[in-house]
Amino acid sequence: MGKFHLLNSSKEKTTEYKLVRVKSAWTCKEKHSHTGPKACVSAAKIYESLTDKGTCWTVVTPIIFSYKVTETHGLLDPCNSTLLTGHTHEPQQADTLRIPTKPIRRFVVVDQEVYRIYGTQISTYFESNNVTCKILALPTTEENKSMEMALKILEELNSFTIDRRTEPVIAIGGGVCLDIVAWLPPLPTTLLSYIDASVGAKTGVNFANCKNKIGAYIPPVATYLDLSFIKTIPRRHISNGLAEMLKMALMKHKELFELLEKHGQHLLESKFQSDSNVFGQSSQSASRSTRLAIITMLEELAPNLWEDDLDRLVDFGHLVSPALEMRVLPSLLHGEAVNIDMAYMVYVSRESGLLTDEEKNRIISCMVGLELPVWHQACTMELIQSSLQDRLKHSGGLVRMPLPVGLGQAEIFNNTSYEILNSAYEKWCNELSIPVDV
Amino acid sequence: MGKFHLLNSSKEKTTEYKLVRVKSAWTCKEKHSHTGPKACVSAAKIYESLTDKGTCWTVVTPIIFSYKVTETHGLLDPCNSTLLTGHTHEPQQADTLRIPTKPIRRFVVVDQEVYRIYGTQISTYFESNNVTCKILALPTTEENKSMEMALKILEELNSFTIDRRTEPVIAIGGGVCLDIVAWLPPLPTTLLSYIDASVGAKTGVNFANCKNKIGAYIPPVATYLDLSFIKTIPRRHISNGLAEMLKMALMKHKELFELLEKHGQHLLESKFQSDSNVFGQSSQSASRSTRLAIITMLEELAPNLWEDDLDRLVDFGHLVSPALEMRVLPSLLHGEAVNIDMAYMVYVSRESGLLTDEEKNRIISCMVGLELPVWHQACTMELIQSSLQDRLKHSGGLVRMPLPVGLGQAEIFNNTSYEILNSAYEKWCNELSIPVDV
Repeated sequence: MGKFHLLNSSKEKTTEYKLVRVKSAWTCKEKHSHTGPKACVSAAKIYESLTDKGTCWTVVTPIIFSYKVTETHGLLDPCNSTLLTGHTHEPQQADTLRIPTKPIRRFVVVDQEVYRIYGTQISTYFESNNVTCKILALPTTEENKSMEMALKILEELNSFTIDRRTEPVIAIGGGVCLDIVAWLPPLPTTLLSYIDASVGAKTGVNFANCKNKIGAYIPPVATYLDLSFIKTIPRRHISNGLAEMLKMALMKHKELFELLEKHGQHLLESKFQSDSNVFGQSSQSASRSTRLAIITMLEELAPNLWEDDLDRLVDFGHLVSPALEMRVLPSLLHGEAVNIDMAYMVYVSRESGLLTDEEKNRIISCMVGLELPVWHQACTMELIQSSLQDRLKHSGGLVRMPLPVGLGQAEIFNNTSYEILNSAYEKWCNELSIPVDV
Repeated sequence: MGKFHLLNSSKEKTTEYKLVRVKSAWTCKEKHSHTGPKACVSAAKIYESLTDKGTCWTVVTPIIFSYKVTETHGLLDPCNSTLLTGHTHEPQQADTLRIPTKPIRRFVVVDQEVYRIYGTQISTYFESNNVTCKILALPTTEENKSMEMALKILEELNSFTIDRRTEPVIAIGGGVCLDIVAWLPPLPTTLLSYIDASVGAKTGVNFANCKNKIGAYIPPVATYLDLSFIKTIPRRHISNGLAEMLKMALMKHKELFELLEKHGQHLLESKFQSDSNVFGQSSQSASRSTRLAIITMLEELAPNLWEDDLDRLVDFGHLVSPALEMRVLPSLLHGEAVNIDMAYMVYVSRESGLLTDEEKNRIISCMVGLELPVWHQACTMELIQSSLQDRLKHSGGLVRMPLPVGLGQAEIFNNTSYEILNSAYEKWCNELSIPVDV
């Protein structure tokens, strides 16, 4: 509550009240008034200020968010209860679900493509567990991520009717699917959503041709991760996910960077299904890299769930890429656009003297090894500048540019000059541009 | 955080981490590890549990909501800065606004009818203060309170472009207007919204023919109340607002009930513009009644902002009325539907032996004195039963019926029998029904 101040003028008298439950009613009591040890006192407070202009009440009330991210296996095995009970926080609640007094109901939104591959398994899972469920398979692509689709889901949900407090909505699919079903337990099936969309609180749909313009900051009650889903993901989409993993590596974890540098190709080949053996040394590259990506992401999100602090390392790669992604949709995947943004920013870091040439080259080589694009003709200096201008507007007047400072470390910069941005752009194009097909 | 438990099985090992800021990055540290006195430690925590089935991370993070309700006068006087700076919590921020470095921009949504009366004054206010503003006048009626209207506002907002962190959206109007503009400082212009919509956190639009089906629980940063707006409200709409005031009186404040009983007619006549003089005794009925209505409402909302506790006294009058209101729209105003629901419930209380005949009669007479309907032919026993059934579904299997227990006190009941509901219904109809026009 350190950030909270009450406006005080000299003529003002402020009284602080605590809230005490008396039978069914909550009642204001003066801060220092006596309340017995058994009294039910709320964490909320009400402040009343009387001025010559009138009365002002300030309500200060904390809401505790708690959400779970579970990494497990065999999620669609009918004997595994995670999908049915994993969202409960209270052991008793889980017990009630195990010995159900009323039929369990679940509303499930599945990406169409995921449904093609896992549809039978998903239906069997719920049937075997006697769950009355409505499975809604939708083409959850970035182009379709609109308010219309969100409303379509809401209409279906409304006609199926669930108890929104005890019957969670389940989303199975990639990041777009999880983004739209802004509500409850997601089961990510792509690598990108596995380590990115699924661990955050931010959801949204595109609106007025702007990416994620309307959305909410409410985390799902639970997220279930099962690496085995990654085995059916096309290679390009695995690279796509590796981009967000590399982001966390560059921002704050050198070990993760070196792991991706060394084992990136193996991760792509094995689709995260086995740990690797390089130069005779076995390494738990698949499990270790996902673990590090999740934990580094959670570390940044937990203290800043609602982005009160605008200096966010996780914004790396997301300053220019939203405009780039929307401009060339559907030709670039999200992670690809992010990687192009990061590659350019690595040049900005180099020009600012924050990275050595060797470090810069290692990062770019790592990106190429992960089969990610490092340049795009649509990422022009104009696009970069207008994106940074736009960011100024939405970030309290500062550009807040996260830049790598060595490998696995970063800082936020606000005063990068046009000269540096421009010379970085020129070097970036000189070294990495691909001749456009004639 | 008392309600929060971690699922623990015997094989589970849980580690608690605190989050410490190291340069720009947040980092997990074991709960008991040493952190210097200057360290930046977050209020958030991460718990990591390892089981034979996998890893589970639980993020627990508090978000502090703080919002202001200001009762003042002369809000549209160009010299009064409340509308421009009243939403800021930090004195420095208000100072910055007083000596603006960049032009102030405001997006204002006004009810069409309010605009007809106050449009010139509103425009003059912003012009005199050199505010670049977009004033959007809309027919904000219950029938129009749809996702379409919310999206229309969003489109206009998007094309006007504001900094959503420092440039609040201002809503001026009644409850529907404040409901739709789910975001920032409202200025209520009806009595109903003055004491009801404006002091809560709940906003929403109707969807799929259900009242307030889609919405949010985010309180506005500030609400400004100025009783002088009430003087242009039609008498019927003042009664409409008095219904919600009476609700709080019946649930928890005998003084407020007696005030409405004694001075109700004066409040209607004077439109809350002057305090009353009854039997030679002057009473601050207008200011005292609004003050009590606001504070009793805030008392109930502050400890239960997100309705974690479903036993809510403020639900009185709101069990049957939503279905009734939607069924006969637009013939009943919100407060009128609420009052019909309350009148029936008073009979349920009487039949349950919670009220004496004299208390029941005093309450019904008070309602009649406030010129509120106490019966409606569309409020059938079927509607009552289906509403209570519906509530069971959305309230965790209990009906949670707030009922008056004497005057100005209430309790929540779950086991009212069909017999009582039915005999209450019969007596209610016998005593209060109005012959339908032939």
